[in-house]
Amino acid sequence: MLDGFPDKYRFTNDAEAIKELLAFLKNPQYQRIVVCGHVRPDGDCIGSMMAMYHYLQGLGKEVRIFARHMQMENLLAFLPDGQAPAEEYPTDFAADATVVLDISDPKRVVADFVDVTDRPMVCIDHHATHQPFADLCWVDEHAAATGELLFRLFDADNALTPEIASCLYVALISDTGGFRFGNTSSSALAAAATLVSAGAKPAELAGKVWGNVPRETVEISAHVFSHLHFEMDGAFVWAEITQDIFNAHGGEKNDPDNLSGEMRSIKGVQVALLLREGADGSARGSLRSSGKADVSKIVAPLGGGGHRAASGLEIPGPYAESSQKILAMTRSGLLAQLQSQ
Amino acid sequence: MLDGFPDKYRFTNDAEAIKELLAFLKNPQYQRIVVCGHVRPDGDCIGSMMAMYHYLQGLGKEVRIFARHMQMENLLAFLPDGQAPAEEYPTDFAADATVVLDISDPKRVVADFVDVTDRPMVCIDHHATHQPFADLCWVDEHAAATGELLFRLFDADNALTPEIASCLYVALISDTGGFRFGNTSSSALAAAATLVSAGAKPAELAGKVWGNVPRETVEISAHVFSHLHFEMDGAFVWAEITQDIFNAHGGEKNDPDNLSGEMRSIKGVQVALLLREGADGSARGSLRSSGKADVSKIVAPLGGGGHRAASGLEIPGPYAESSQKILAMTRSGLLAQLQSQ
Repeated sequence: MLDGFPDKYRFTNDAEAIKELLAFLKNPQYQRIVVCGHVRPDGDCIGSMMAMYHYLQGLGKEVRIFARHMQMENLLAFLPDGQAPAEEYPTDFAADATVVLDISDPKRVVADFVDVTDRPMVCIDHHATHQPFADLCWVDEHAAATGELLFRLFDADNALTPEIASCLYVALISDTGGFRFGNTSSSALAAAATLVSAGAKPAELAGKVWGNVPRETVEISAHVFSHLHFEMDGAFVWAEITQDIFNAHGGEKNDPDNLSGEMRSIKGVQVALLLREGADGSARGSLRSSGKADVSKIVAPLGGGGHRAASGLEIPGPYAESSQKILAMTRSGLLAQLQSQ
Repeated sequence: MLDGFPDKYRFTNDAEAIKELLAFLKNPQYQRIVVCGHVRPDGDCIGSMMAMYHYLQGLGKEVRIFARHMQMENLLAFLPDGQAPAEEYPTDFAADATVVLDISDPKRVVADFVDVTDRPMVCIDHHATHQPFADLCWVDEHAAATGELLFRLFDADNALTPEIASCLYVALISDTGGFRFGNTSSSALAAAATLVSAGAKPAELAGKVWGNVPRETVEISAHVFSHLHFEMDGAFVWAEITQDIFNAHGGEKNDPDNLSGEMRSIKGVQVALLLREGADGSARGSLRSSGKADVSKIVAPLGGGGHRAASGLEIPGPYAESSQKILAMTRSGLLAQLQSQ
C-alpha cells in the first residue's frame, strides 16, 4: 500500500489517473519494476507490456516482464531481444514496484499473484468486470484496449517514441480486430492516427500481427473450410478440428486464429461453431453470432461464458460424446432464440 | 469546358480545390448531375459515388449513378434502393454536369467516355498515374482513397451526415484493406475517427464490406488454399482458379477477394501469384509481394502494371499456354531480384 493513497484506489477521471500514475512511474524510489500481463498474453497485453517496458527504460529504470504461456509467435518481435516473458514472477529481481496491465482479476496472472508480491502495485485495465486489487487502478471499460489508456498516459507525457507508438498500435489493432470489432471508436482511431504520426508503421505492424502465418495453419484453415456443416437453411454452420487434424499439420501450435469469426462471415449464417479436440480428449467450442442470436445464452447450460457475439466453453471428454453435447446445445439454443424472435 | 477556368484545370492545392469544387457542385446551373465511377467499381469507388450522391441530393439536385459491371454484392447496400449503377451513361437524363470519381483514365469508365458527354466535368482521384481529362481535376496521389479527398471536401462544407460518413468510411476501409495496406496514413486514420464521430459504425460497415461472403466464394477459397504450389523453398507460392473451378461454385461472380494478399501472408512467402482463367480463355495474374520483391517489375515483360507490393496483368489465351508464360515470368523475375539483393 502506498503512502498518501487510500487502499485500492480507483481513479474516477482521466486527468487524475494520468497525473498520479505518471508520478508513480517516475518516482525515483521505484527503480526496479516488474511489468505483468495475463496468462496467454494477446496483442493488447503484449503491446501494452512492451510500451511500458520502453517507457520505463526511457526513464532509466530496470524492467522485467512476466506473463505466462506466451503463444503468439508473431508478436515475439515486440519483446526484448525476441525473448518470451518470464514464466514466473522474478522474485530474485528485488523489484521496487509492480505494474499490472490488461488484468481484471489477479488470478489471470497466477493463482496466488497478490501473495507473490507485496510491492506497491498499479494496474491499468479496460475490462468491464475489473475488480480493484492493486494500490492504484485506472480502469476505463470504454477504452478499446489497455493500449488506448497507455496512449493517453504516454501522450500526456510527450513520450511517444516510434518504439512506444508501434507497441501501442499493435495493442490497438489486436483488440479491435484491425478496427473491425464493435469496440472500434472514434477515440481509438484518433489514437491510431497520432501513433502513426509518432512513427508506427501500419502495414508493417499489421504484417507482424496477422502475417507470417505458418503453412500448416493455412492447411488447417483450408481443411475446416472444406468441411463445413450447414444446418437450419444455412443459419447454423459448424466444423471441427480433431487431434488427428492438428497432428497431421504439426500440432496445436498451428491452431488458426479467429476461424469461427470467419465462419460467421458467410452469408446467411446466424451462428458459427468451431469445435476443437484437446490433447486430453476435452471438447472446446468457439461460438460467434452475426448479430441476432446471443451466443452467451447458448453456451450457458454447459457452463460457458462470454459476450453476446462471441462466447466459448470447454468441457471434459471423451471428445466424441462431449462435442455432440455442445452441438446439441447449440442447435437447441439457437432454435429457441430464432423461434422467440 | 467551363467559363472562367482554363481547359483541363488541375488544382495545385487542397484549399483551392475545395473552394472551386464546392462552387461547382453548388452551382444552381447544374441541377441534374451524373456521378460516374470506373468499370467493376470497388469499395472506394462505390463509397465515393454514394457519398457524392447523398451530398448532391442534400443540395436538392437530381442524381444518376453510372459505372459498369458492379460485382461486389456486399456493397449493394450502399446504392440507392440497393440497385446496381446504370450500365450505360444515362443520355436520356439530360444531365447538366458530370462528376467523375476515382478515375485516372476516362477509358476506365467506357472506351469512348469523353465523347459520350460534353457536359462540364469535374474529376476527383488519387491515382499517381492520373492524366487530366476533366475540366477541373483534384488529384492527390498521397490520399489513401478517393473517399479521403471527398472527406476533406464535405468536412470543409460541414456536410458529414451519418449517411455520407458511412459511405466515406466504406471507401477508406476498402482501399486501405481495413487500414492494413501501405497507404494507411495518419490522415486516413484521423479522417476515419471524424467519420465515426459523424455517425459511421465501424463494425457494422466492416461487416457489410467483408461479411456476407457467399458460401460458394468460401468453397473457392478453400479449394485454392488446399492447392497451393510452393517453390524456391517457400519464397514463391502460386495457385490458380480455372473456369472449371468457377463453374463448380456458381461462376465468376463468386470470385473471392484478395486471395493473393492472403497467400502473401504465409510465413516465408516473398511473392504470391494467383492465376485466373477468364471465360474467354484469357489468363489473369494477381501478384503480391511481402516487401523485398518489386512485383511491378516482375509483370512488366508481359505488359502488366501496378505497384511494388501489388501488381497484375491479363493476357489473351489459350489459358494453358498463357498461364505458363505468367508463371515462367514470375519465377525468373523473382529469382533475378532475389539474386541481385
